[in-house]
Amino acid sequence: MTMTAIAPETAFAVEVEPKPITKVSIIISKGTLEGVYPGLIMANGARMEGIEANLFFTFFGMDAVVKAKQEKIKVATVGNPALGLPTLIGALPGMSGFVTKQMQKKMEALDIPPIGEFVQMIADSGGKLYACKASVDMFGLEKKDFVEAVDDVITVGEFYELAAGGQIIFT
Amino acid sequence: MTMTAIAPETAFAVEVEPKPITKVSIIISKGTLEGVYPGLIMANGARMEGIEANLFFTFFGMDAVVKAKQEKIKVATVGNPALGLPTLIGALPGMSGFVTKQMQKKMEALDIPPIGEFVQMIADSGGKLYACKASVDMFGLEKKDFVEAVDDVITVGEFYELAAGGQIIFT
Amino acid sequence: MTMTAIAPETAFAVEVEPKPITKVSIIISKGTLEGVYPGLIMANGARMEGIEANLFFTFFGMDAVVKAKQEKIKVATVGNPALGLPTLIGALPGMSGFVTKQMQKKMEALDIPPIGEFVQMIADSGGKLYACKASVDMFGLEKKDFVEAVDDVITVGEFYELAAGGQIIFT
Repeated sequence: MTMTAIAPETAFAVEVEPKPITKVSIIISKGTLEGVYPGLIMANGARMEGIEANLFFTFFGMDAVVKAKQEKIKVATVGNPALGLPTLIGALPGMSGFVTKQMQKKMEALDIPPIGEFVQMIADSGGKLYACKASVDMFGLEKKDFVEAVDDVITVGEFYELAAGGQIIFT
Repeated sequence: MTMTAIAPETAFAVEVEPKPITKVSIIISKGTLEGVYPGLIMANGARMEGIEANLFFTFFGMDAVVKAKQEKIKVATVGNPALGLPTLIGALPGMSGFVTKQMQKKMEALDIPPIGEFVQMIADSGGKLYACKASVDMFGLEKKDFVEAVDDVITVGEFYELAAGGQIIFT
Repeated sequence: MTMTAIAPETAFAVEVEPKPITKVSIIISKGTLEGVYPGLIMANGARMEGIEANLFFTFFGMDAVVKAKQEKIKVATVGNPALGLPTLIGALPGMSGFVTKQMQKKMEALDIPPIGEFVQMIADSGGKLYACKASVDMFGLEKKDFVEAVDDVITVGEFYELAAGGQIIFT
């Protein structure tokens, strides 16, 4: 009987065209503007394609969903030679705020919303948002410190469970 | 004969519940405290769920498993606006050490061990630790410079081999 | 009839040895030397093993494929305590250039080429290179600003499409 031989062949035939991505679970771990946006843009891009999107905020990246911090996120103007600013200029008081404003203007021109709005937009489009339990405890935060869009505070183990069957992207 | 039609249906039925994650291969590439901990926490979280965990240390992240450097890893207090420190304050001698101590105290309160202990704990729980051959050569290190928990020095190609069937997470 | 029972068993038998990785899609998002190299090294390592490699350049990481910027990429000497440089020394004019030269020398000794050459080498070996549409628009760039090795400017959605069936690695 050739049944067991036929089943694997079918499987191989299916794999010639790779299975499309159906889920992404994106970790946002950095608290700078250039650290937070890539994860949001990838989550939003996923939702626009009908791909399931989970966002998991941890360490300083949690600022993106903490009410008191969300709108204060800035571009790093030192330790970021790509900006082309000499360190001693980048270190001037107000410089980080200035460069941040410049970048925000450019983003606005491209219809990329400010972080608070962007986070809400992703939630509204069906993306799920989670804060990392270990980080929440470390920074002494509570559920009420987070914006409404955050669905839950979960552990790393729970994150792995919900990421099953998709791609994990750490940003 | 409808056999080839039946096999794919079975496959689809199985996929309704996604296959749990069984392996993670985590790359640690940054040499700051906030750069090293996320990878360790994710590896530890994986082991606690019975998920296979490989850690691959590369570039400055290698400091986490180099004897002479492991306990000297610090928080970046400049280029990290999320801390809320003005750059010129963050640049003061001793400031990075001070903020590092504060964060270590908080972690201790949460039972998150110092890096050296944490690395050993992950190894003891069955996690595998590797150093990146290209980085080892670049920094002129030898096997004896590493803590005992490190299993081997491997190439990128070997890393891809052992990561097969799991998730790659670059931190 | 036991046909549906046999097919899943076959599937489990196949999974004992995990399927090798056949494709990696690597995102390069940072514009420092230590931010760009890991992604290039992982792409090159993939091609050497016959693994399909896609590189997607976004945010400051785009500098690695912008003609006017490619050879000016530097090591961050502040915000990088792993270097062991006090911040006020790292901030001295010229310090980033100096440390960059030191690292480039070490890389040359290891046959790791400068960024421009390395990017071309990956393209020559069959790796595909893409710039992120949102970032291209944000920085006001055009196709002609990029080195020849760049195949196309694509959206996040298109990136997910080409990454299907492989691993996404965000660096």
